[in-house]
Amino acid sequence: MSNDAARHGLKAIRTPTGHLMVLREGADVLAEIATLAEREAIPSASFVGMGFLSEVTFGFYDFGKKAFDPKSFRNVELASMTGTIAWQNGKPSIHAHGVVAGADFIGVGGHLLGLTVGTGSLEITIIRHETRLERIVDPGIKANILQL
Amino acid sequence: MSNDAARHGLKAIRTPTGHLMVLREGADVLAEIATLAEREAIPSASFVGMGFLSEVTFGFYDFGKKAFDPKSFRNVELASMTGTIAWQNGKPSIHAHGVVAGADFIGVGGHLLGLTVGTGSLEITIIRHETRLERIVDPGIKANILQL
Amino acid sequence: MSNDAARHGLKAIRTPTGHLMVLREGADVLAEIATLAEREAIPSASFVGMGFLSEVTFGFYDFGKKAFDPKSFRNVELASMTGTIAWQNGKPSIHAHGVVAGADFIGVGGHLLGLTVGTGSLEITIIRHETRLERIVDPGIKANILQL
Repeated sequence: MSNDAARHGLKAIRTPTGHLMVLREGADVLAEIATLAEREAIPSASFVGMGFLSEVTFGFYDFGKKAFDPKSFRNVELASMTGTIAWQNGKPSIHAHGVVAGADFIGVGGHLLGLTVGTGSLEITIIRHETRLERIVDPGIKANILQL
Repeated sequence: MSNDAARHGLKAIRTPTGHLMVLREGADVLAEIATLAEREAIPSASFVGMGFLSEVTFGFYDFGKKAFDPKSFRNVELASMTGTIAWQNGKPSIHAHGVVAGADFIGVGGHLLGLTVGTGSLEITIIRHETRLERIVDPGIKANILQL
Repeated sequence: MSNDAARHGLKAIRTPTGHLMVLREGADVLAEIATLAEREAIPSASFVGMGFLSEVTFGFYDFGKKAFDPKSFRNVELASMTGTIAWQNGKPSIHAHGVVAGADFIGVGGHLLGLTVGTGSLEITIIRHETRLERIVDPGIKANILQL
């Protein structure tokens, strides 16, 4: 378990279809999902989630620059998060997209580069698969692709 | 079953992973999910859904006022809904976030305070867990937190 | 399998709760889900997904005209997709809603009329039900309704 996971008290239970995790203020969401994947030896999984964020960074991939153009937002509801867990070079590889909205309720979304739980919590439901899956960078487009 | 559930004909089937529910025009979505939770004795669950709404009210929590600032929208597609079912003081406690869009397709989202099915239907997929879970108000932030 | 499915290499694996599918550039998403439904004899199912799209068309239903007002967007992240699989007149009937966002991260969403995978991929998680379900046009509103 990472120092972050210990500090923020990663809490998760086993369910008939996978895991249910509740994260509290200050938790680094993608890091906590990776920690759970390692601790529970999740071969691969899909997840959905929602909650409140102190900060979120989205990235829109620029195929010309082969890099993400990032943009951050603070104190927003995470209206939806959809993602998958796989492995890459022996470490968990988390791919997640989401939609957030602040006090004006205007939706903002895309590929999640990072997100931190704000005042309140974040609830994540993980549907566990039993096939070990790898993500590999496709050399033609320099993007990570889930291999089935 | 509430009068509303009887009037709008709450329809749901059991699936290998939980329940599938279809609601029709006029149904109070959060009340129908609570009715299903009681009728089927759902210990806890996660759900996703989508459909058409005659009205939706989002609330953005103001931690200064310890209250939700609400805003309502009419005749919108529910583009996504993500939520969980738990219990609080012996009654179902439904926590749901969503994103909606009207005729201009602009996304609006956040924490769902209430939503009513419009012309058409709403389809909700419930992943059932078998652990009874409670939601408790965290005294420090006056917000409901799912207890694992 | 359709010509499209053969060309784009529909890839899917069986999971404990259903199927996991990864689509690549050029894939017609709704057609690929229908192909999988036929190939795997899916009685009914719910799904979530996310990825990158070269094009997406949303439709907002005009109950006066009994038709969808469509609008298309190009090169957007699919931030969330939520849908169901059923059958109609012996063929798969796919109902999906989604939220997308482009380089400005502004969310756009609603009922999905069509969507094509862009550079990268699209990951779809399918929760399989074991009850054969039909969609029937409700004569009063001329809209398709999932029958339980």
